[in-house]
Amino acid sequence: MPRPDASREGAPRLVALKGGGKAGKVWLVGAGPGDPELLTLKALKALQAAEVVVHDRLTPQAIIDLAAPGARRIDVGKRKSRHTLPQDDINLLLVGLARDGLRVVRLKGGDPFVFGRGGEEAEALRAAGIAFEIVPGLSAVIAAPAAAGIPVTHRGVSASFTVVTGHRQRGERGVEWEALARAGGTIIVLMGVAHRGEIADRLIAGGLPADTPVAAVHAATTERQHVVRTTLAELAVTPLVAPATIVIGAVAAYAYVGDIAQEVAERRS
Amino acid sequence: MPRPDASREGAPRLVALKGGGKAGKVWLVGAGPGDPELLTLKALKALQAAEVVVHDRLTPQAIIDLAAPGARRIDVGKRKSRHTLPQDDINLLLVGLARDGLRVVRLKGGDPFVFGRGGEEAEALRAAGIAFEIVPGLSAVIAAPAAAGIPVTHRGVSASFTVVTGHRQRGERGVEWEALARAGGTIIVLMGVAHRGEIADRLIAGGLPADTPVAAVHAATTERQHVVRTTLAELAVTPLVAPATIVIGAVAAYAYVGDIAQEVAERRS
Repeated sequence: MPRPDASREGAPRLVALKGGGKAGKVWLVGAGPGDPELLTLKALKALQAAEVVVHDRLTPQAIIDLAAPGARRIDVGKRKSRHTLPQDDINLLLVGLARDGLRVVRLKGGDPFVFGRGGEEAEALRAAGIAFEIVPGLSAVIAAPAAAGIPVTHRGVSASFTVVTGHRQRGERGVEWEALARAGGTIIVLMGVAHRGEIADRLIAGGLPADTPVAAVHAATTERQHVVRTTLAELAVTPLVAPATIVIGAVAAYAYVGDIAQEVAERRS
Repeated sequence: MPRPDASREGAPRLVALKGGGKAGKVWLVGAGPGDPELLTLKALKALQAAEVVVHDRLTPQAIIDLAAPGARRIDVGKRKSRHTLPQDDINLLLVGLARDGLRVVRLKGGDPFVFGRGGEEAEALRAAGIAFEIVPGLSAVIAAPAAAGIPVTHRGVSASFTVVTGHRQRGERGVEWEALARAGGTIIVLMGVAHRGEIADRLIAGGLPADTPVAAVHAATTERQHVVRTTLAELAVTPLVAPATIVIGAVAAYAYVGDIAQEVAERRS
């Protein structure tokens, strides 16, 4: 097929070719848990080369700022009356930008494939024949416990961990909390603050002791990081700020933070 | 307490103070899944500032090489007759190096707290009063599936995932495979190649369909990466190279690799 003649001015398709006729591409990039230093080298490189950065409302500004000053920023988490852009519209936006020949970075909190809906975006890009690349990121499911000094596995204590979302999507099978309790190992709950009472009840019904340690980590790896320690029995009545990563199991009592003074302070608070 | 007199030559304690009398510190650093570009910025910074790098046999040379040329490298995965240094000896080594006033990076594959025994090293350092810091890394449990184009969660398909080790440590409670099958969600098995037949049998006994998709990812994110797709029923007789990250569940059939040609090639092979 002949390439469009770039000298023929005014054709609508050419106007849209902001990338100068080159093939566009999308990088689905994990932004990590919050601390810009926890970006991967590959993610930084993709960001620095981006012509457009498509990000969410909660993406830290310090990470968005790593893109070139001239790069366009699009916040898909903010619209009139604080509504989030529906996923289908985000998919269309990414396809459209890539068709315009642009290098697009889609920044996702944590990792694109861990409750990040990166699979849906990859699906849409593939269906549209757009080249794309997945750049994994540190997921909060592991980084948030780590920031609180909690190893999600620990020899002789926990040989497995399960990551679940406490927020059920429409049409999705609910979490089998009782079976999870019986399976053993550490349980890490995302988006579970609102339903923590029910979650605790069902885990206890499944056989977990009421005094099982629980830790909730809010704003992990940022200056606003806050860790609350409690037990399954007390979880429902323990005040928590959403969103938080909730760790349930023996390891939740651990606190291997590097600075020993900090650890003592946390325990006393 | 008076500081030791640095001018008094020959005192054994002073000879050991290679760090020049400053306080030593240990960074427990996640080296990520293999690709040096998947190191975090923080990990790179720690490596570049290290005076000693303590690494395992499988740590990629390209990552070790990011340390300063003058930094000492200690391989704790290799000894006479290919024996690995016991964990207690590694702990003592880290404490000793830090007591010598050195900046020590302990490089761990993936993430220090995900089957990395980082908790044990943190425990030993804390007990010895040594300052340390945890630098999380991309764990293969998420990065290996991602490198094969597999989202560990996917809307309407999998709302949870469980990470287990197929290799039982002495004295540790075995994995409740049947309960895991009932809990639903994606199952990710590390160190499971040797026992894959038994694991498949028990998951099927627990209720997983025999045609449940399975993917095994070897040497993820490196040039030697190799992905094998099979089913639970066929897992026992499917040739696999250890170590591999084994993904079990509907998402294991997915292949959102960025390069479309590469994906087609993988599926045909």
